[in-house]
Amino acid sequence: MRNIDLIKRDLKYNWHPFTQMKDCLSFPPVPLEKAKGVKLFDYNGKFYYDTISSWWCNVHGHSHPFIKKAIKRQLETLEHTLFAGFTHLPAITLSEKLMEVIPGGLNKIFYSDNGSTSVEVALKMSLQYWKNKGKRKRNKFVSLDMGYHGDTVGAMSVSGRGPYNSAFERLLFDTLQIPTPYCYRCPSGMDKDKCSFECLMAAATIFENHHEEISAVIIEPILLGAGGMLVYPVKFLRGISALASKYGCHLILDEVATGFGRTGRMFAAEHAGIVPDIMCLSKGITSGYLPIGLTVTKQEIYDGFYAEFDEKKTFYHGHTYTANPLACAAGAASLDLFKKEDSLFRAKMINKKLNCFLNGLKDAPYAGDVRSVGVVGAIEIVEDKKRKKPFDPSRRIGMEVYTEGLRKNLVLRPLGNVIYFFLPLSVKENELDDIFERSLSVFKKVFK
Amino acid sequence: MRNIDLIKRDLKYNWHPFTQMKDCLSFPPVPLEKAKGVKLFDYNGKFYYDTISSWWCNVHGHSHPFIKKAIKRQLETLEHTLFAGFTHLPAITLSEKLMEVIPGGLNKIFYSDNGSTSVEVALKMSLQYWKNKGKRKRNKFVSLDMGYHGDTVGAMSVSGRGPYNSAFERLLFDTLQIPTPYCYRCPSGMDKDKCSFECLMAAATIFENHHEEISAVIIEPILLGAGGMLVYPVKFLRGISALASKYGCHLILDEVATGFGRTGRMFAAEHAGIVPDIMCLSKGITSGYLPIGLTVTKQEIYDGFYAEFDEKKTFYHGHTYTANPLACAAGAASLDLFKKEDSLFRAKMINKKLNCFLNGLKDAPYAGDVRSVGVVGAIEIVEDKKRKKPFDPSRRIGMEVYTEGLRKNLVLRPLGNVIYFFLPLSVKENELDDIFERSLSVFKKVFK
Repeated sequence: MRNIDLIKRDLKYNWHPFTQMKDCLSFPPVPLEKAKGVKLFDYNGKFYYDTISSWWCNVHGHSHPFIKKAIKRQLETLEHTLFAGFTHLPAITLSEKLMEVIPGGLNKIFYSDNGSTSVEVALKMSLQYWKNKGKRKRNKFVSLDMGYHGDTVGAMSVSGRGPYNSAFERLLFDTLQIPTPYCYRCPSGMDKDKCSFECLMAAATIFENHHEEISAVIIEPILLGAGGMLVYPVKFLRGISALASKYGCHLILDEVATGFGRTGRMFAAEHAGIVPDIMCLSKGITSGYLPIGLTVTKQEIYDGFYAEFDEKKTFYHGHTYTANPLACAAGAASLDLFKKEDSLFRAKMINKKLNCFLNGLKDAPYAGDVRSVGVVGAIEIVEDKKRKKPFDPSRRIGMEVYTEGLRKNLVLRPLGNVIYFFLPLSVKENELDDIFERSLSVFKKVFK
Repeated sequence: MRNIDLIKRDLKYNWHPFTQMKDCLSFPPVPLEKAKGVKLFDYNGKFYYDTISSWWCNVHGHSHPFIKKAIKRQLETLEHTLFAGFTHLPAITLSEKLMEVIPGGLNKIFYSDNGSTSVEVALKMSLQYWKNKGKRKRNKFVSLDMGYHGDTVGAMSVSGRGPYNSAFERLLFDTLQIPTPYCYRCPSGMDKDKCSFECLMAAATIFENHHEEISAVIIEPILLGAGGMLVYPVKFLRGISALASKYGCHLILDEVATGFGRTGRMFAAEHAGIVPDIMCLSKGITSGYLPIGLTVTKQEIYDGFYAEFDEKKTFYHGHTYTANPLACAAGAASLDLFKKEDSLFRAKMINKKLNCFLNGLKDAPYAGDVRSVGVVGAIEIVEDKKRKKPFDPSRRIGMEVYTEGLRKNLVLRPLGNVIYFFLPLSVKENELDDIFERSLSVFKKVFK
C-alpha cells in the first residue's frame, strides 16, 4: 500500500476532527501503518516522533507489549457487558488500582467514555447533589474565560467562548466566568514577578456576589491545555480551592489532560496539595489505547444520592459502553506500568531536559514566552517580542511549523501561536535529544 | 473467586449508571466472569441470557472469534493515534464497508466515541451549516416529547423532559417539542386502527409556524428505545421526513439503537424508504465490543463547511479517541459478519418466533400492549387492562420482573412498565425457545 492511495481513499469518506477539510488538498492526512514507542510510521516507511502523545493520551509509548497482553487476555473472557446490574473484575481492579494513587478523600468512581462525558457527569453530579439537598438555588457554574473542557454542549458551556464554540452559542448555558491566569498576557496587565494575583481577586468578587447560586467551579489544575498550554501558579489554584471551600461550592478539577504523570506528579492537584470534590479523568487512563472516562468523587457527594428509590435522588446518567472491560484492562495495566517502569521518575528526567531545551530558546526573537511543567513544554511565538505582538492569524504560522515538522519527522501541532511538546513518559534520552535537535532546525527554517 | 467477594469489592468504589446505589443492598450487581454467544456467566457458574444485548449493542454474540481476531490483529500494529492530520487503514476500511450498507446519498463520516457524542455532533453540524450559509435564524431543533438521545447536555436537550433529566433543566436549551406517536396511549386519544395521524398534524403546525427558525428535526426512526420501546407507524416517519423536506430543515435520524439490523433492516430508515440529512450511529457498530460513535451526512452539508480556512467555516469538534483503530477494526469485522452469518436473514427467523411469543401473550391480563419490530419486542404491562391503568410506580413491578428474571437465568431489564427483548442477531432457535419459556414462567410468577 502507498500513502497516496490511502489518502485518496480516506478523503472520499472521512471528515476529520478540528480540520478544515479543504486544507487537506495541500496538507493531506498522513496514513499511519504502525507505531512503536514514541514513533509513528507511515506507509512509505517514514517515521514521525509523536511529541504530542497522540493528543496527550499516550503515556507509556505505542504498542507496549504489557498493555497489548492485558487487552488480549481480557478479550478471551468478557469483551463487554452493561454496567447496570452487573459488574466485572476489570472495572473492580481498575478502580482499586486508581484508589492507590488518587488523592485521599476521593473514593467513588463513575465511569463514562471520554473527557467530555467525564465533565458532563461532573457538572450533573454537582447540580443534582444540591437539588437532592434541597438547595435548588445552587445551579450555576464558575469557569475560566480561557478554559477548555470538551466539545459536548455541557463541556463547551463551561469552556471559554471563542472560535471553537462561537457557532453554537445559542445552545450553551451561561456561566460565571473568571479571568484566566495567563501570566504572559496578564489580564490585569501585571508583571509575572511582581503580581499580587489580581485575577484571584476578580474570582473572589464573583464568589462573594454569587456564592448562593454557585453549584461548582471547574478548572484544569496547573496547566490549561487547549486554552494555550498555559502553566499557572499553584497559588491561583489554591486560591480557587479556598474560595470554593469558603463558600461551600464544589471544586471540580478537570485532570483529563493533566492526570497520569503529565505534570510530573500523578495528578496535578498534588502540586497544590488540594483535594477536589470531583475530579475528571480520561486521556491517559488507558495510556492512549482505548477510550474511557472517569468522574471521581467524595463519599459526601455519593451519599447525597444514596436514598430510598422513592425519594427520587438517583443519578440518571449512563453510556452503553460504560466501564468497557477491554478499556478497564488496559487502564489497570497502564497503572502497573507506572510502578514497573518508574514512570514518574522518568518524568523528572524528561522535565530536566525539556527545561534545558526551552531555556535555550528564551532569547530567540520569535519566542515570546516559554513555559513548562512536567513533560509538557510550550513556546508562545510572536512577531514582535518586545511588544508581545502575535503573528497575524492569516499568516497561519502554526501550519508552517506543522508541515515543516512533518518534513523533519516531528508531530508538532501548534495551538494557534503556541508550539508545544506533550511527551509520553516512556520517551528515551537519546530520542529527546533528537526531537529537540530536529525542532530547532524546524524553528530555524520557519522563523529564519 | 466468589460472587460475594467481588460484589463487596465492587460496591466499595464503583457508582453504577442509572442505578440507585442503595438498591444494591437488596439487589447487588452480578459479577460476570465471562460471556459467550447470548450467555453471560457469573463466578458461581450460573449463566444469564443476555436478552437485551448488553444495552442493545451486542449484535453477533459475545466472545466472537472473528471479532476478537480482528482486534488482536490491529493491536499488533497501531492501537491508536490522533485522527487530525493522520489517518489509518482501520478507519478507511470501516468507512468503506459502511458505505456499502448505508442509505444512498450519505457519504461523509464524522467519528466520535458514543451515541451521545454522535448526537451532539449532528446537532452542531446542522446548526453550523446554517450559520455558514448565512442563515443564522435557523437555530432551533424539533424533537419528540418522549424521545431519548443520550445523557450529555445537548443530547438531553433534544430528549423528552422527565425524571431522567428533570434535575438538569437549568442546563438544557429549549426545543420545539412535538407529540410522540405512542399509539397505545395516543396523545390525541385516537384508536390505533382508525387514527388519521393527528400527531403528525400537530407536528405540521409546529413546522408551519416556526420553519424559518428550524435547524433540524431529530427522531429515532420506527422505534423509540429508552422512551419505552415504542414502535410507531412508518407513515409518521415519512410525514416528518416530508415536513423537513418541505420546509428545508435537516432531518436527523438517531439510529444509535435501531442501526445494524435490529429492526430487521440494516437501518430503520429503510422501512420508510427515506434518507436523512444526518444519521447518528453507535451501539451496534462494533457489535458491542468497543465504544465508537459515527455521524454520517450528505455531501451538501459537508460542502457547507468546505472553504478557505480564513472563511471560518471549519467544524470544531473532536475527541481524543476519535476513530480509535481497535474499535474501527472491530466495526469492520462486525460488518463482515453480517454477510458471513447472513445476520439479516437470521433477524427474520427471530422476528417470527418473537411475534409468535408476543401474540401468545396478547390475552394475558397484565399485557396492556405488545409491540415489536425486527428483533425487538415489548410488553407494556398494566394493572387494569381495560382501563390501561399502569402499575403504581411505587410498586416497582419492573424490579420484580428483573430479579425474578435473574433467578430464571434471564437479563430482563424493564423500562418502567415495559418489559422488552432486544436480541442479538446470533441467538439460536433453541436458545430463543428457552428464553421465551423462562420468560413465561417469570411472568406467571410475578403477575400470578
